Formats: sequence, C-alpha cells, structure tokens
Amino acid sequence: MNTTPDIPTISLNSDIGEGFGVWSVADDRALLELVTDANVACGFHAGDPDILLRTCRDAAELGVTVGAQVGYFDLRGFGRRFIDVPPASLAADVLYQLGALEAIARACGLSIAYLKVHGALYHACVQRPDMARAIAEGLTMFGRDIPVLCQPGTSFAAAVGDAGCRLLREGYIDRAYQPDGLLVPRGQDGAMITDPEVAARRAVQIATTRTVTAIDGSTLPLEVDSVCIHSDSPGAEKIAQAVRAALEDEGVALRGLLA
Amino acid sequence: MNTTPDIPTISLNSDIGEGFGVWSVADDRALLELVTDANVACGFHAGDPDILLRTCRDAAELGVTVGAQVGYFDLRGFGRRFIDVPPASLAADVLYQLGALEAIARACGLSIAYLKVHGALYHACVQRPDMARAIAEGLTMFGRDIPVLCQPGTSFAAAVGDAGCRLLREGYIDRAYQPDGLLVPRGQDGAMITDPEVAARRAVQIATTRTVTAIDGSTLPLEVDSVCIHSDSPGAEKIAQAVRAALEDEGVALRGLLA
Amino acid sequence: MNTTPDIPTISLNSDIGEGFGVWSVADDRALLELVTDANVACGFHAGDPDILLRTCRDAAELGVTVGAQVGYFDLRGFGRRFIDVPPASLAADVLYQLGALEAIARACGLSIAYLKVHGALYHACVQRPDMARAIAEGLTMFGRDIPVLCQPGTSFAAAVGDAGCRLLREGYIDRAYQPDGLLVPRGQDGAMITDPEVAARRAVQIATTRTVTAIDGSTLPLEVDSVCIHSDSPGAEKIAQAVRAALEDEGVALRGLLA
Amino acid sequence: MNTTPDIPTISLNSDIGEGFGVWSVADDRALLELVTDANVACGFHAGDPDILLRTCRDAAELGVTVGAQVGYFDLRGFGRRFIDVPPASLAADVLYQLGALEAIARACGLSIAYLKVHGALYHACVQRPDMARAIAEGLTMFGRDIPVLCQPGTSFAAAVGDAGCRLLREGYIDRAYQPDGLLVPRGQDGAMITDPEVAARRAVQIATTRTVTAIDGSTLPLEVDSVCIHSDSPGAEKIAQAVRAALEDEGVALRGLLA
Repeated sequence: MNTTPDIPTISLNSDIGEGFGVWSVADDRALLELVTDANVACGFHAGDPDILLRTCRDAAELGVTVGAQVGYFDLRGFGRRFIDVPPASLAADVLYQLGALEAIARACGLSIAYLKVHGALYHACVQRPDMARAIAEGLTMFGRDIPVLCQPGTSFAAAVGDAGCRLLREGYIDRAYQPDGLLVPRGQDGAMITDPEVAARRAVQIATTRTVTAIDGSTLPLEVDSVCIHSDSPGAEKIAQAVRAALEDEGVALRGLLA
Repeated sequence: MNTTPDIPTISLNSDIGEGFGVWSVADDRALLELVTDANVACGFHAGDPDILLRTCRDAAELGVTVGAQVGYFDLRGFGRRFIDVPPASLAADVLYQLGALEAIARACGLSIAYLKVHGALYHACVQRPDMARAIAEGLTMFGRDIPVLCQPGTSFAAAVGDAGCRLLREGYIDRAYQPDGLLVPRGQDGAMITDPEVAARRAVQIATTRTVTAIDGSTLPLEVDSVCIHSDSPGAEKIAQAVRAALEDEGVALRGLLA
Repeated sequence: MNTTPDIPTISLNSDIGEGFGVWSVADDRALLELVTDANVACGFHAGDPDILLRTCRDAAELGVTVGAQVGYFDLRGFGRRFIDVPPASLAADVLYQLGALEAIARACGLSIAYLKVHGALYHACVQRPDMARAIAEGLTMFGRDIPVLCQPGTSFAAAVGDAGCRLLREGYIDRAYQPDGLLVPRGQDGAMITDPEVAARRAVQIATTRTVTAIDGSTLPLEVDSVCIHSDSPGAEKIAQAVRAALEDEGVALRGLLA
Repeated sequence: MNTTPDIPTISLNSDIGEGFGVWSVADDRALLELVTDANVACGFHAGDPDILLRTCRDAAELGVTVGAQVGYFDLRGFGRRFIDVPPASLAADVLYQLGALEAIARACGLSIAYLKVHGALYHACVQRPDMARAIAEGLTMFGRDIPVLCQPGTSFAAAVGDAGCRLLREGYIDRAYQPDGLLVPRGQDGAMITDPEVAARRAVQIATTRTVTAIDGSTLPLEVDSVCIHSDSPGAEKIAQAVRAALEDEGVALRGLLA
C-alpha cells in the first residue's frame, strides 16, 4: 500500500450500511465522510437494496472504496449467531452477496475492493476449516482475486489464508492489544478504547511507526494496510473525526485499499 | 432470432428455481432438460443462493440460456401480491436481483440473457408507468442492454417499451388466445390448455406458420421469439415433453434467446 | 374511562417495541416510564419475541397497559407499504399476532387491552371495507371483545366501526388539527408540534376541557380516552416528559386504557 | 392413555402444515384424514398464519388433536440447521410460537395438547442442557402443563425431562429399531421402512403387544402413547392409510393424545 516511502500511508475502514428498512445502527453518512474504506453489509445480516445503493452512491461521491462485508442470512441475529450452514450453501451465500453488491457498486462507478467476514461467520471460520474454505470457494466462484481484510497473526487469518484467500491486514485503534498481538477480550478491563484522543494517538503511532503499544506498555510491531473503526461503538463518529484529524496533522496520507 | 430462413427456429422458456430451502413448485431438472431458456427466480419472490447455483449449473450442463425473473421481496406471497414499493426502491431491488443472479450465472459460465417480470410486479407495471420505469432504471443501472421478455401487444409490453426497455416476444401454448390477440382470462371456459398433444400442435403452428388459432377458430398472426410453458401448471413436464418432441419432429430448431 | 367526575383522567399511549434484533427506533424503556399504554408491535412490521418479552416485562414492572399494534408482514417496509393481502389472510395475520403477543403478555401478568392498526394497513382499512372487516374478523376469531384505538370521526373509525369493532378514541398533542377535526397533513406548515411545552399545554387542554385548539385558532370539542405521543418523532421522550409533568401538575389522573 | 384395558388404544401423529405461502411438503389434508394428532408447524421453521388456520380448521372438522411443533426461526433451513440462539431468546421463541398457534387453535375450538421439538432444535437439546431448559422455560411461561412428545429412553427425553418437562412417548413404524431401543441411523441399511404393509404390521404389534421387533429380530418392549408417521417420507399417505386400516381391522381404538 505504501507506495511513497517518505509519506506514511494508511487506510481507515468501518462497517457501513448495517441497517435494514427504517433501522440503522450508525450515522453512515457521517462515517463515510471520515473513512477511506466502507465494509458494506450485503443484505444477509444487514443491509437492503436501498441501503446498499445509498451507501455506494455516497461512497462514490466521497471517494470511498467499498468492500463486501458478508455474513450469515440472519437479520434477526445480525449475523452474530453461529448457524451450521453446510459449506456448499455458505459458498453460494458468499457468491450471491458479492454479486448483489458488485452490481450496485458498478452502477455507482465502483467495484468491490476486498471482502470482510462479519460476526459469527468470522468465528466459525476459525473453528471450522470447511467454513473458511467455503469463503474461499465463494470468492473463487466470483472470479476476481479479491483479498480478505483481517487481523494478521490470528487463527482467522491462518484459516482463510490456508484456504487460499489473499489477505489484507488491519489494526484496531479502539481495542487494546495483548503483548502477544491479539486483542484484549471484550469485557476485560481496558479492552475498549473510547477516548477519541487516545484512539487518535494510536492511529498515528500505527501509521508512522508501524508499531502499537500493548496493554502492558510494551511496544509491538504492527504492519497493517488499514485501521478499523468499529461503527457500532458509542461515539464512533467522534473517534473517527479525531483519528482522521490527527493523521492529517501528522502528514499521514489516507488512501483507500487497492486504490 | 430466425437467422436461417429455411429452418424455423423457436425458443422454449419456463420459470425455473421457484423454490425456497426445502420447498419447490416444479421438477426443475426435468424441465431444464426440455426447455432452451430458464427464467430463474432471484431470491425475492422465490429462490435462494443454493437453488440459483444449482439451477445455473444444470442450465450450463444442459446448454440452457438463463434469464432473470425478478419479483417483489415477498416469499410469503410468492410475489403475487401487489406491494406499493416506491419506484426508487424497486429499481434498487431489480439491480440487486440482477447482480446476485449474474454472479452465480458467471460462476457457471453463463450470463443473464434477458429479464422477465414476475407476478404482481408484472401487473403493477401495466397500471403504474412509474413501476415500469423503475424496471427500466434497474436494467440501466445494471449497465447491459438486457431485453425484457413479454407478450407483444399488451399493456405491459407498451409500458416497459415506453419506459425504454428493449423487448423480446413470447407466445403461449398452454393458454387460449382471444381474437384480439390477448389471452382468455384464467377461469373462463377453455382458458387453459392441458392436453399435451394440443399444446404441441400449437407450438408447431406458432413456430412454423407464425400464427396461432384463437378460441373462436380464427387464425391470428403471432410473431414471437419464444414460447412459454408455465412450470406451475399440472402436467407441465408432460406438456414440455410433447412440445419439444413435436417441434423436433417437424424440423423446428430449438434455440435459446440471444444464443 | 373517567370514573371520578371531579378528577379529569386521561391515558397516554405510544408505539413501543418497534425494533428488530439489534435495531430499534426509540428508547423504549424511557418512553415506558412516561406513558400509561404501550402499543406493542407484534413481530410483523417490527418486533421479535425477545423485544415483545422485554417490552411486556417492562410494562408489567411499570404498571403500563399493553395493546397490540398489528401491521403487515413486512419488516423491510416497516409496515408502511400497502400490500394487497387477501382479507382472509389478513384476518389470520391479525389473529396470529394477537395470539403471540397475548401469550407473552400473560407470561408477564398482563393481557392485551386494545388493538391499534399500524401504518399502511391503517390506510388500507379506510379505502377498502374488506380490509377493515378482516381486522374485525381477526378480533372476533381471537374471541375477546378487544376495542380498536383510533382517532374518532375519521374514515378509519367509520370503517372499523362499520365492520363491527368497538372503538376507543385517541387525540394527538404532537400534530395540529384542522377546524374540521382532522389532522393537518404531514408536510404542511405547522402540522408537527415539536415544542414540548406546547405539546404539554395541549395535553392539559384536552384532558381538562375536552377541547383542542385547531390550527386556525378555533376551539374544537375533543372527547378522547387517550392521547398519543408518536415515538418516532425526534424528541419523543422530551415531549412525553413535558406532557406527563404538566398533566400531573394540573391534577389530571393518568390511567391506562381499560385499567 | 389406555383407559379401557380390554381395547388397545393408540394415537397416530404426523407433522402437518410444514409449508410456507404457496409451498408445501406433504398433502396435509390427506394426512389429517388419517391421523389422530397433528404436529402443527408454528411459523418459524415452516407454516404461516393461513396455513396454521387451514390446518386447525381441518383438524377441528376431522376430530384431530393439535400439538405445537416448535423450531428455529429459519425458513430457509427448514429448522434443520443448528443456530446458536441464546437460551433466553429460545424461550421467548417457544412462547411466541405457542401463543400464535393457541390463538388459531382456539378460534377453531381446539387447544394445544402437546409440544414437539423440530429438527436441529431437537438435536441441540440433547447436546446443550441450557437449550432443553429453554424449551421448559417457554412452556412454563405459557402457563399450561403441556407435555412434550418424544421418543422414550433417548438423550432428548432425558434432557427435557431433567429440564422439568412432562413427557408423552412416541414410537416409529417407518424407522427400524436397534436392539438397544434407539433408531437405526438414517443412511444405514434397513433404517427406513417404506413398505406400507410392513409399517402396518409394526403399528399393530406396537399397539396390541406393546413391543416392537428390532432390526436383529429381537423383541423389545415399547410402551408408547402414539406412533409417528413421518410426513416427509415418500409415500407417507400410503403408509398412513395402511397403518390406519390395519389398526382398525385389529380392533385397536385410535384416540388423540389427551383427548
């Protein structure tokens, strides 16, 4: 990603379009004005054709790259409940979601740049290599070499990597890291970073030094292509604003994935 | 369609893949072995990713052309109940369905050749020009010049034609015609043709003479690209078998739309 | 309703539980602490078993009466799009929704006190007497004499009244009245009342004088059992707070419908 | 169940109403004319308000008892895919389904006589005591002492029994038994009994001798209240016809559960 060695470059991604009908979970437009990459829900765990189209139009207008955020066919559970979908069905589900989003993205002059796996399907891929392979099979059937955006060094990265997926790497500025490079589990003290200024400093550190400070104070190397801002956190917009402002102040170039 | 003037040519189309999960309404595989063109349900009024993929795989194996059969987002009503969807939503719905099917078709080496409008959405386009224009807008956003398959001379053909859609023409061998070229309404005596041999003779007449005999015995000109076999009629397979055999016996070439 | 002539009494109702899965449209708990009657969505246009159960538990804890808010089976359209459901299906839909909510209400020590018709189904009943009769048929099949809560003097009240439904009457403190007693249509100047203090004064006027001031300054008689606070208005909670405080300050007794 | 010691008595149950909209999996009316007890799908894995109402009306007309067949909220998977639903949600789901069916049953002069657990939820209860307890909690919240119909001696019976559910016992005439009293797994030779005459003889043996012949020829005691006929087996109606005729020929009284 970092094509001009002298200027540090990073992408900012966030989940966008995770509503359904009248419902929403975030101020999508406000977030789209701050990020470089939108992980667009494709209608299975969230999203509907109106929302997909509005999201892609806004993304095109704002120069935001779109990725496909695929999940289980489970609006009621928001894709957060494991469903024992046969792998062949899962591959078909991924292909269907990619096709639907791609048509809408193309109508807006865009194209899917990457895939991100949502919620319980993400966790299923860690436990079940057949699920990870189903993601890869869906991508292969789609016929374009679309990378999977995920946290490097995780069981998920290994699972989808082993299944043949090309990977892009993301880091987190609103979640604390353990010394081993994994995230402090939600629910533990200090797991969530909600102070926009702290989040902003972390973003600058990641982008300019390619390191992150773990919860014990140690410094970890962290080579990533993008940093993720969780759109369903309280105050997600304020965090995104502070992060973007700090990166721009430090001369970091914000650039969408594969752009 | 008729590129070799000496050999009459016709396509046979039928609705395929109108199931959901474990449910189905027809023996899709048996029909696919008999038709040249499959109107594939895209997941809104019927169809799911597994069924779409199975249908497209079978179609590819059997040399059948696929079209997109788009409908309302209404599994419970099978797309047969009018829903007052705002036109902008309807265009997005059409685009989403086209994209989903196209990705699956491409994975099988196929591509959507035409669009057919299902059920209550078909009737809505007749009453509401804004609905017909929404279909056209969905097609335009999809970005390929995909024709709409429909009965020529109808209010629907006029509506979608006026809305800017290119048209392909279909005739019916299992429904009786009035002298004015429209269909005898379901429920009237003689409206439905269920005798496979009668249906087969009508198919041969349409393909070889470009005429059809109306319910009053008069002969009507009927220039069509395809004849439709309703897959949800009782005995649809038997009709399709008899039609195909009769056409082949008479030396009519069966050829998929746009193939 | 007003059993103690010397103390004016009124009910306050609001739509509650109009979320689905992770999504919501209002702070239901905050509103439940302010109203006397909750119009509970039953899972068709909004609501799911978790939300119904949480709503009924909160209502029981807070002494709030529950009514069934029935709508079309259309989560994506939030019940706001007309669907041409056959009347027999509509009656079955009403019965199903009543049964589901009643079981959950009973588990919380409550019982459905009234029915309210949501969104496009409300408007359909005005245009189509067969739809209004289907609501009545659903109520009859449910087997209890449950009244329908609606604006008196409207086509809807006439339609469901003619269909045999018993009526309860509601007025509005966040919508302006025309001199003929109907509401100023949304979109016209002054149609919406968003100032909590103005809304509160209107509530007191309705409860204590059984009149309302129309948009032209004239005073209309308004005999109602309940006043409705639209939960999807911006600032619905602030309006509800001001209304409740003003009513209590004026010595108006707040009492749930049929309680 | 067997209140007249001299006349053997049995119930015949089958899954009924497992369609959705236009779709179905069996000829429900034909089966209803042959069984004494209908396990009615409640709208989550199958069934919709129209189908529930038609099923209950037919059951009332034919003197058939109704039970609630509850499952996961998963039409696409027909309730056959495990979903990791939190137990509190599952209890709410069970309560919602019971309420919806009970209202419809009562409108037809019936009442839910028992509960049966469908598909993947059945298997989940075996593995996860918290799931079995959620079923029991849903029943408890419903407030009537409704028994659970299941195979005696199984892990499922133990799980729901331990969770506090009262049990009714069923046997199978279209599935082979192992010598230990469990069923021969589907897929093994001889697991399925498709010959109506064989099935009929087994029904008579179960009803008159309270034994069944296992796949190895040994005779097992089998004390059950009902025998189940799987409605999704090919030839289910023919099996039901033969079973009913044989039982009547042998003087066995057919009597609905709890009737």
